[in-house]
Formats: sequence, structure tokens, C-alpha cells
Amino acid sequence: MVADFEAMWAALAPVGRSAASGGYFRQPWTSAETELRAWFTEECRARGLRVEADGLGNVVGWWDAGEGPAVLTGSHLDSVLDGGAYDGPLGVVSALAAVDRLRERGVEPARPLGVSIFAEEEGSRFGLACLGSRLATGALDWERARELRDRDGVALPDALESAGLDGRVDPSLLAGVGCFVELHVEQGRGLDDLDAPVGVATGIWPHGRWRFEFTGEANHAGTTRMEDRADPMLTYAMTTLAANKQARLSGQRATFGRVEVEPNGTNAVPSRVTAWLDARCADEATLTGLVAAVERQAADRADRDGTTLVVTAESVSGLVEFDADLTRRLAGAAGWPALPTQAGHDAGILAAAGVPTAMLFVRNPTGVSHSPAERATTADCLAGVEALADALGRVVT
Amino acid sequence: MVADFEAMWAALAPVGRSAASGGYFRQPWTSAETELRAWFTEECRARGLRVEADGLGNVVGWWDAGEGPAVLTGSHLDSVLDGGAYDGPLGVVSALAAVDRLRERGVEPARPLGVSIFAEEEGSRFGLACLGSRLATGALDWERARELRDRDGVALPDALESAGLDGRVDPSLLAGVGCFVELHVEQGRGLDDLDAPVGVATGIWPHGRWRFEFTGEANHAGTTRMEDRADPMLTYAMTTLAANKQARLSGQRATFGRVEVEPNGTNAVPSRVTAWLDARCADEATLTGLVAAVERQAADRADRDGTTLVVTAESVSGLVEFDADLTRRLAGAAGWPALPTQAGHDAGILAAAGVPTAMLFVRNPTGVSHSPAERATTADCLAGVEALADALGRVVT
Repeated sequence: MVADFEAMWAALAPVGRSAASGGYFRQPWTSAETELRAWFTEECRARGLRVEADGLGNVVGWWDAGEGPAVLTGSHLDSVLDGGAYDGPLGVVSALAAVDRLRERGVEPARPLGVSIFAEEEGSRFGLACLGSRLATGALDWERARELRDRDGVALPDALESAGLDGRVDPSLLAGVGCFVELHVEQGRGLDDLDAPVGVATGIWPHGRWRFEFTGEANHAGTTRMEDRADPMLTYAMTTLAANKQARLSGQRATFGRVEVEPNGTNAVPSRVTAWLDARCADEATLTGLVAAVERQAADRADRDGTTLVVTAESVSGLVEFDADLTRRLAGAAGWPALPTQAGHDAGILAAAGVPTAMLFVRNPTGVSHSPAERATTADCLAGVEALADALGRVVT
Repeated sequence: MVADFEAMWAALAPVGRSAASGGYFRQPWTSAETELRAWFTEECRARGLRVEADGLGNVVGWWDAGEGPAVLTGSHLDSVLDGGAYDGPLGVVSALAAVDRLRERGVEPARPLGVSIFAEEEGSRFGLACLGSRLATGALDWERARELRDRDGVALPDALESAGLDGRVDPSLLAGVGCFVELHVEQGRGLDDLDAPVGVATGIWPHGRWRFEFTGEANHAGTTRMEDRADPMLTYAMTTLAANKQARLSGQRATFGRVEVEPNGTNAVPSRVTAWLDARCADEATLTGLVAAVERQAADRADRDGTTLVVTAESVSGLVEFDADLTRRLAGAAGWPALPTQAGHDAGILAAAGVPTAMLFVRNPTGVSHSPAERATTADCLAGVEALADALGRVVT
């Protein structure tokens, strides 16, 4: 099993990696991500799994066995911009390795077992996280999705077409699924603090993305007196500090990690600054309150700066509580510790769609994620595969 | 004369204009700017002016007359990103119209008179303002300039080549120049406050561009506790507010108008924020003090944020005092009022190179500049042409 896991891991390592940073650029429907999908399809076929795919790049490799509701396990292969190697691929490689492990153990599933990948989990290209699973579960309409555009103005249907996909949403892909298990590298230091290689998730914090558009008046940076300006950069700057402070004081999360400035010239006062707030809280009321407080402080400052502010919620996900019974079976005899996460996952989308869902986490020694520095030890990854195989063995038989 | 001025203005109006904003994108050595240079060459030839050009896109149309040191007048045709119609082109069109006016008046110059354009005055593409005049006067070495790259990584020699230019610096272009006069739209409201259509410049404030690189640690925006982050966006945000406050309190100018974020993803704490400070003060000691104060506050905040800061001066221009005798002749019988400017100009580069230099300003009713909203009335523009023709008539005879 060690050899299989390491061989798969080595095959993925070079795809979409930046020589400069060592990080990954695996945006959906680019050549790197298309290569990863082809790799996954081949790995499924090499195991005799029957491959089903929709026109979005969601793919399931089926171990057709027994009957009744199927067990699905998997994750995603796309990355954030300059992301790490583990976020997504670890769950996919571990799922394939767990299938190998079950066969080594001679397990005969009493029901179908599928290994899945979902497209654009990170939302790094079209701004909407879990786009593939949202469309596959019907949480998002194609009529709305087809209007999405990436940063270069490419519409989603055109991006799909350039990757050889027709955009066909196929509800039958998940029709027979009775439960979903996603293994993922932990994105914080919870397991490291607990000294455990593996853990299970209790749920996902409510979270969302809000677009803040600060509009002012372009002007000459040299000749315009400070008091004659309407500079949206100032309003933005105060807002990002205010968001940080709000989240810090309340133990929640708020980040402005993406900013676009117009015209973005050194000697011009900007006409517009667009920035995206990522906010996450332990409960929905706190999240609503946090975003409202940031918006209120931003609006007050906009009044003083002579700028205007428009805030648009691009996506908001409610609290996800994973299936208690399934989670208990994942924790298993080892009694892996349970902890919440602040990160969205396809598992959250499937849970919201009514599929009993649970997650396994693998320890991340530094907690760093969405970064080239993201890490997990091979020993912990293999413990994750074993835990996943144990759990799947319990639910498929 | 009205017809000539308006016909030239109408010919320039569509070139490089954004239909979305109404502003101009006339970055140097792009197709728009190449078209403008071709237009200028043709206008010179139509007037029987002998065209000389170097391999950078600096061009002079010579009225070969008399002998002795030549009189040069002109401005630039490139724009900032999403800029206005007047900044640059007004001085070029007015110079050509002034030649027409002198001929209508039957003036016989006792010395050569040249109409000039200098390339990349705004520094909007290669980050160094007045690049063309700096190279033409020897203020900048080609060996240093050839290393410059634009935002897309295109090296200056490649940009020049793609515009059909060989990058050859030709010192003889300005060899015989005895004085330089630049007409420019005013970029503040000084003349509007004084109720004057035209004015003369006393000098240019010391000014410069400093690149601030804030480096932190990329991380997941959801799972990373606020207290575990090293977020360079926070350091940047405080720095832009500090720069604004410093300048406001002292009656100087400081602007962060350009920002680049890596990886610039909504759900990632940034690894790096690069931002450019544009600062301008009435005297050099104040400018040095202002930048040092901003840098000190930024460094203090970086310590608190766990980020690091590197500040690099990309260009710093000292105080320019225009030639008093030439300025008196520009003010002329009308006694146009004199006022300083905070904006850099090719005139400042020629003055620093020892060429007696002066500037004429045309009233800007709102003071807005480096913006699609930049304006001047036709009546004021025509008054500017008349004032320039008067001044040139005095110095060429």
C-alpha cells in the first residue's frame, strides 16, 4: 500500500507546480487540471472501476458491487492560486488507496462504492466555491452558473468547452448515493495540539464571501490636495483593519485576501477599489452580525472619505452538522478525536443536500494551508488511508 | 486657427479611448500610442517641418530657420491608465497650432523652432516617469533602462521592437536646443481660483515613487486563527492610512494608488502585498522626512503583524526651478499669474539637464486630472495657443 500511495503522490507532484514558489496553480478547466482529471480517470480504469462523468468535470469511479444505496468517497483536484499539494488531492489519492486496501483485505462490498472528484471546489477561478458539487446536487442552477465569468472575462460555458466539456449537469451521477465520506488534510493545528494523526469533523462553520466595491474619484496623485480627494483606497484600508479587529476580538475569522484597484497607477488616486471579505463564524447569527458590523464601519468611513460603498453577498453557506452516526463509524475503534472546521468542503454541500456525510482529517503539523508550505507527513497520510479503509469497510458491508 | 485646433483635437479623440469609462489607455509602444506618433509625424510633415526621431519614440518636427540655439516646444502623447484627453496632447496640439499662428502672423524666426513629443512621460508602463526625456538628455543610461520590465514582464527593448523602434538613444536630437517651453493643462485648481485662463509655472515640487513590499505568510482564510497569521494586507492597510495622515497634516501629498497582492485569492491570507507610494513635497527635506515617517510607521506595524517590509526608491526627482527670464517672457504683456506644480513633466527633466525651461498652464475648471473627467474649455485652450504663440514669437525673433 505504501508503494501505491507514494507512486500516486509522485505522479501528481509536478502537475501545475510553480517553479518559482513551489506552490500549485491548478485552476479548474486549465491544462493542469485537465491533466489531473485524465490521471484520475486512468487510475479508476486501472482498478476496474466504471467511470461516470458529467459535463462539468465531476467524475465518479464505481466499484459496482452488491446493491442498495452507494457509498461515495473522494475530494477534489483543483487548488487555490499558489496552493499546497494536499488540499484536495490527499482525499482523492487516499480514496483510491483505500479501495486497494479493501481489496487486499478481501472485503466484498455489499453495496456500490464510488471514488469521486468534484470540480472547482476552491472557487479560485469563478469565485463560487464547490461549484461542481453545487451543480451536481442541484444547489445551484445552471442558468445562474452559466453567467459566471473568471477574472479574464471568460464565461463558464466557454471555459468548459475549452477543456472539452459540454457543461451538461447530470443528476443521475449522485442519484444512488446513500452516504459520502471526504478525507482532507486538516487546515489548522487542532490535531497537532491533540497529538493525533487522524480526526473526524463535527461540522463546518457558517461562512461566506462578500464583495465590497468602494468607489471614489480618479485624480492626479501629485496635484490634488489631500482635502479635495475622494480616495476609495483609504476606505478600503480602514475596512480591512476593522474586519480584522472584529474577528480577533470575537474569536471568529475575517480576511480581505483579494483586492482589485482601478486604474491601479502609481500617480493616480484610484477611482475604485473592489475587495472580497471572507468571513466565518461558529454560528450564523454571529456571522451575520460580524459582516454587518464591518459593513457599518466601512459605510461610516466612506461618508468621511466622500466615497461610496456597495456590498454584495457572493455566496453564504449555513452551518453544516455532519451525520452523527456516520461520524461515529468513522471515529471507529481508534476513537479518533472530533473537531469542527472553518473551511468549506464538497462534503458540506452534499450534507446540505440531505446526503448523510462525514469527514476524516489528517494532521497538519504547522496548520498552514492554502499555501506552498502546506504539509502532512507520509506516516500520517498512511494512517489516514488506513482509517478511511476501516471506515469504508464498516459502511459497505 | 480655431478650425485647425479643433480638427487636430477631433482626430486624437478616438485613439485609445475606452468605451466603458470614456478614459484613455495610451500606454507607450502600444498600438494606440504608435498611432498617435504616426499622426504627429504626419502633422509635422504637412507643415513642412523636418522630422527627426530617435529609437525610443521621441520625435521633433523642425522649422529650420535662422541660426543659433533652437527653441523647442511640445509635450507628450501617452496617458496614464484610464487617463484624460488633455494631459500631454494639449501641449502637442497647442505647439502645432502655435506654429500655424506664427506663420499667419508672418513671423520669420531668427533661430530654429522645434515641436517635440517625448515617450513614456507618465511612467504608466515601465514605472519610470519621463523615460523618453531622461534617456534623451542622458539623465538615465540605456544600460539601466534596458532592464526595465512592464507588468506583463515585457522588457523595454522588446516593447520598443514590437513598436518598430530600435531603442537607439540619439543625443543629437536635443544637441542644438537653447530653451524648452511646455504647455500643459493645469492639474489642480490654482488658475480657476485666480480666475485666469493661462498661467506660468514657477517650478516643480520634489517628488518620487517608493515601492513597499510587505511579506507575510500565505494561509487559509478560514481555518487560520487570527492570532496565528502574518497578514501583510494589514501592514499595508495601516501604512496607506498613515501616509495619508502624514501628508494631510503637513499640506504635502502622499498616495498609494497601485497595489498588487499575491496570491490575491478570496480564501487565502496573502503572502505578499506590493504597493507604490507616490509622495511630493514643497522642499526636499520635507519629502525625505515624509517618506521616512511613513516607512517608520510601516516597519513598526510590520513588527506587530509578524510581516517584513522592504522599501525601494524607484525614482526621486529634486526641486525644479524654471528659468526666471524665460518664464517672464512667457508671462508676457498679459502678465499671466505664476504658480508651482506638484506634477512631474519632461520640462523638469530638461531643466535639470541645464536647458533653460519654462511652462505654460491652461485652466482646468475642476482641477481633476489623471481621470476621464479631466477637462478644459475650448476658449481656454485657444487662449493657451495664443499665449504660447506670443511667447514663442518673443523668443525666436
